[in-house]
Amino acid sequence: MLFNKEEYKNRLKRVQKSMQDKGIELLISQDTNNMNYLTGYDAWSFYYTQCVIVHVSAEEPLCFVRAQDAGGAYIKTYLKKENIIVYEEKYIHTWPMHPYDPLIELIKKNKWDKLNVGVEMDSHYFTAYCYEKLKQGLPNAKIKDSERLVNWTRIVKSNAEIEFMKAAALISQKAMQTAIDVINPGVRQCDAVGEIQKALFYGTSEFGGEYSSIATLLPTGKGTSASHLTATQDKFVEGEATIIELSGTYQRYHCPMARTVLLGKPDQKKIDTMNKTNEALKAGIDAAKPGKTANDVAQSFWKILDKYGIEKTSRTGYSIGIGYPPDWGEHTLNISKGDMTILQPNVTFHMIAVMQFGDWGVEASEAIRITDKGAELFCDFSKELHIKS
Amino acid sequence: MLFNKEEYKNRLKRVQKSMQDKGIELLISQDTNNMNYLTGYDAWSFYYTQCVIVHVSAEEPLCFVRAQDAGGAYIKTYLKKENIIVYEEKYIHTWPMHPYDPLIELIKKNKWDKLNVGVEMDSHYFTAYCYEKLKQGLPNAKIKDSERLVNWTRIVKSNAEIEFMKAAALISQKAMQTAIDVINPGVRQCDAVGEIQKALFYGTSEFGGEYSSIATLLPTGKGTSASHLTATQDKFVEGEATIIELSGTYQRYHCPMARTVLLGKPDQKKIDTMNKTNEALKAGIDAAKPGKTANDVAQSFWKILDKYGIEKTSRTGYSIGIGYPPDWGEHTLNISKGDMTILQPNVTFHMIAVMQFGDWGVEASEAIRITDKGAELFCDFSKELHIKS
Repeated sequence: MLFNKEEYKNRLKRVQKSMQDKGIELLISQDTNNMNYLTGYDAWSFYYTQCVIVHVSAEEPLCFVRAQDAGGAYIKTYLKKENIIVYEEKYIHTWPMHPYDPLIELIKKNKWDKLNVGVEMDSHYFTAYCYEKLKQGLPNAKIKDSERLVNWTRIVKSNAEIEFMKAAALISQKAMQTAIDVINPGVRQCDAVGEIQKALFYGTSEFGGEYSSIATLLPTGKGTSASHLTATQDKFVEGEATIIELSGTYQRYHCPMARTVLLGKPDQKKIDTMNKTNEALKAGIDAAKPGKTANDVAQSFWKILDKYGIEKTSRTGYSIGIGYPPDWGEHTLNISKGDMTILQPNVTFHMIAVMQFGDWGVEASEAIRITDKGAELFCDFSKELHIKS
Repeated sequence: MLFNKEEYKNRLKRVQKSMQDKGIELLISQDTNNMNYLTGYDAWSFYYTQCVIVHVSAEEPLCFVRAQDAGGAYIKTYLKKENIIVYEEKYIHTWPMHPYDPLIELIKKNKWDKLNVGVEMDSHYFTAYCYEKLKQGLPNAKIKDSERLVNWTRIVKSNAEIEFMKAAALISQKAMQTAIDVINPGVRQCDAVGEIQKALFYGTSEFGGEYSSIATLLPTGKGTSASHLTATQDKFVEGEATIIELSGTYQRYHCPMARTVLLGKPDQKKIDTMNKTNEALKAGIDAAKPGKTANDVAQSFWKILDKYGIEKTSRTGYSIGIGYPPDWGEHTLNISKGDMTILQPNVTFHMIAVMQFGDWGVEASEAIRITDKGAELFCDFSKELHIKS
């Protein structure tokens, strides 16, 4: 068990409190991260139906997995065996049969079919098919959007979670240093990622790494105008910049980091833009304090961009913690103007500034923890443009 | 451009033919693999809304991405710039605002709002929220399940695609050999994965590797009873077995492979079970010929299991090709009794036998191509229990 039972019980209670506030009696959460958060379940089985089911007054959640993953649930969750509900293999990709058929039977058997049922309407893997199955199978239930209530419960970390994120940060640093060392003219991008991946999994002697919920992003040259490109087998080119975005991962907790490296002679335009970006990041981070809002951080950040006449329309940060593919964002707090989420101690977010200008861009980021008095960085790694001339 | 324009045009035509057959005039495909297949688009941006939109008589599909990914779409797709439709950053995780709002506006602007619209009801990332937005935003459209028609179009590969899969197979072999070499008592699992990942990305001198759509699966010891467990930082233990499932990836094409390694003295029970498993796999593969069905392969496979009194309820294979997280399966053909999909030349599938017995298991697999006369294996790698004593 990754966390002590008290922590899991506390998580459950906070989720149930939020359910009460929203008038939800039964919650079906298919978000892989939420399932991990509430049960400890951890396996690459999220490519088809699995979920955690929370009744508002239950002592434990139910973990709903396919037969092939029952063994994994027994090993990984803190739950009593009776609370691991296994569906048959015959439902795997055999439409119109579907795992939500036995899920509906389970709900009926428990006489939960007239309750107010919360679902995660825009969660990865909660497909339209699942939703239609529920609506048709539970005509007497009132199905409503839970509005990411488990995600919102996750926004304030326990100290145990913070320790995992600090371990992830150490791994991020190691991998970023590796990236900057191995990115050189004439090196294939894929080979550089091979070394970065190795560093991410080796982690440190104390903290071994895991697969990250987002692949190493490595746009290079003209590709720096597009932040989500991954490596190809093309070689790095003298004179071009490369953006590296990666995250160390420890026990599914992430601490992402983005940096930009330039191969060849200093390019004053890129250096200046990087410096302005970092000035804006610093202004945002300086404004991050308990009691302030995400909007306050955003206002401070954009004030610097406005000073330099830089336009940036995308958000500049989001809440982080547990992550499974395809995302390490928590889908709650955004660092953007108008987001009035109040920062509390142990709120953690990734403050990331991507500056794109047609056919080039630079990027830097910090993973941040709100403390009792202000904010601290998880990582200690220079955000300057890393020039290798 | 990965494939020549003729190949992309041919894919589009086959999809449009299938749309006609199903009475679908406009297709919205959010499946990352389908989007790659029809446009060439390739980036880790599938964690929020993106899709390909196909009108039944259009000359090109539309690629719908967020502003931050426009640059990636210009670089990666074969499409005319006008067919890359960009939505604003303000829609990223800012519910109730949603990228399907501008998508609906686009559909209305094109006067497509009274058409028969096909959607991928159970596709990863086509969430219930997307579906509700469409239903409410297009009250005059007839929205129906496309029943994975693009996936079904993908089931028969072109020769160019087969070449990519062969490259992926070479990478799989290298990585599996690395895995068997580095898995030793006292080695941390994460460190072994570090080496495996390095091998997967380095690939060969000709074919560099990419991130796989499923992490390296590495259940060990008691964990071999659960096939989707990934590595921890625990050490491998003398006397225990480890299942390795991985895939080389080349230009997003996969060739997965599973093998089992045993550390320590030969364990006759595991050796026998591995041999029976491999006998069943061979029987299935021998039955795989053009004109035969998936069911024929399954019947031959299970006949061997029945002979040995081994019960296995899960399917023993599925179609493969392009892959993005969270899956490398194509969600079409299953190797299971009753699946009457006819095998044609250049149908490719992963035939995988997981045998689980309470607290242990063994596993082996082959990636298979149907040829003009029979079937051939993509990889050349012994399926015996790899004993390291």
